[in-house]
Amino acid sequence: MRSAPANAELALLLEVTGTPKPGNVDRRREYPDLRFEHFVTGAVGARPGLDLAADATTPLGSAFETAIDGMAEQSGGNTQFGAVLLLTPLLRAAAKNTLDPSGVAAVVEDTTVADTVSFFEAFEHVDVAVDEPPTGMEPLDVRRGSDAASAIEERQLTWGELMARSADRDGVAAEWTNGFTRSFDAAAGIREDEGPIADRASRVFLELLAAEVDTFVVTQHDRETAEAVRERAIAIREGAADPDTVAEEFVERGINPGTTADLVAAALFIALEGGLEI
Amino acid sequence: MRSAPANAELALLLEVTGTPKPGNVDRRREYPDLRFEHFVTGAVGARPGLDLAADATTPLGSAFETAIDGMAEQSGGNTQFGAVLLLTPLLRAAAKNTLDPSGVAAVVEDTTVADTVSFFEAFEHVDVAVDEPPTGMEPLDVRRGSDAASAIEERQLTWGELMARSADRDGVAAEWTNGFTRSFDAAAGIREDEGPIADRASRVFLELLAAEVDTFVVTQHDRETAEAVRERAIAIREGAADPDTVAEEFVERGINPGTTADLVAAALFIALEGGLEI
Repeated sequence: MRSAPANAELALLLEVTGTPKPGNVDRRREYPDLRFEHFVTGAVGARPGLDLAADATTPLGSAFETAIDGMAEQSGGNTQFGAVLLLTPLLRAAAKNTLDPSGVAAVVEDTTVADTVSFFEAFEHVDVAVDEPPTGMEPLDVRRGSDAASAIEERQLTWGELMARSADRDGVAAEWTNGFTRSFDAAAGIREDEGPIADRASRVFLELLAAEVDTFVVTQHDRETAEAVRERAIAIREGAADPDTVAEEFVERGINPGTTADLVAAALFIALEGGLEI
Repeated sequence: MRSAPANAELALLLEVTGTPKPGNVDRRREYPDLRFEHFVTGAVGARPGLDLAADATTPLGSAFETAIDGMAEQSGGNTQFGAVLLLTPLLRAAAKNTLDPSGVAAVVEDTTVADTVSFFEAFEHVDVAVDEPPTGMEPLDVRRGSDAASAIEERQLTWGELMARSADRDGVAAEWTNGFTRSFDAAAGIREDEGPIADRASRVFLELLAAEVDTFVVTQHDRETAEAVRERAIAIREGAADPDTVAEEFVERGINPGTTADLVAAALFIALEGGLEI
């Protein structure tokens, strides 16, 4: 039987295998400098950190930082930061045999101030697109990396508390704060679906993208663009738009619904742990 | 830095990512029952065995059997048996800091009769297409699995000696017997090449296929077919045939040059260990 970290790595690989996934890299679409092979290498590189996430004796933030350090060992840049951020507490919950919304909420609740420091350090390994911090929050700008350590210590913010502050504008932070509801729902959808797993990954991606705006698109562009992206996903699902045409539109406009892809990876992990067969 | 087992797993993943690779599954071509996702799952599943192959305290045959057991945990069947068979002694050589033709020859030389028994046991995990054994060799038919144990013990055949008996008709066994010459040469070719790694994997596949008949095609069809396959690979490399057309021809005739793909995986591993960057 595959271990939980093996399933987490496999989830990252299956996520990028699913096609079509308009706007994102998949096995049929890539950019000259951000290719399918970078995601594959990122998934394999993240593995030692994923192993640590499943080891209850390792601080969770440290496991995350190790995973991102390994993920970044390829020239494509940030491939799976958000996905690994979702997988890390899910892995810890799986290791405790409590891979359910309340179990992962307890993992988030258990995070420490030291975990927050490690989280900031992870940003030193890779360029991650983030919003400007709100007024008054500048000392806690993740782009400061480990320089923010003293501000974190001063405010005594746990990793879970830090994430809660971004929950209204970041889909990954929202999962951390709300018991990973969308990830668990999507996992159930994947298990109920039929056919090749990669096709299910593509369908659940479109379903999630049609349901809520992708916060990464909001960060990179604006809310209006993100709403338009959601409309296009709805149109694809209703058969009113061709996914390949939409993919070309998105690529042309530099639109990557990355947060939605992160959710798919989390959902695939939960589904695999629940017995999804390939 | 990625560990040697991580690089071996990555080599399996990059091999199947390379496209076009006429006749084989890659990220653009798959069969209804043997899909890209089966190869991805096979690579992740093989990892615990690959870890053991890099651990000098584990008998090599046992590491191989563990890798195949894990690889087989997907419904596509035999995805990477030959590739893992090449990677296993290469990993052991890498763990000893002797990843060169004489170092891996020494690993093969060190194999035992117990390794041969484990090798036979590996065939119980997955259906592998093999030739009928030569006259007088029936007791050593790998399809007998662990039932062949007493015949192996009686003849005191080490794993290396067993492979040597197939070297004239099996390209993987030939590598085992000849210091992995083709794998090392192909690795040098990959490192000297330029551009995306997946494209290099595709080019080196065609180069190897044009150079020698694929023994898996000989086993599944006959030598005449394998020679014709080689001619088509030469034609592609000379620009006289379109790879997509050739791929369709091969798929229609059920031709999978699997041994050549195995060599590409071995070459990618050697290149990654040598510092190939992605």
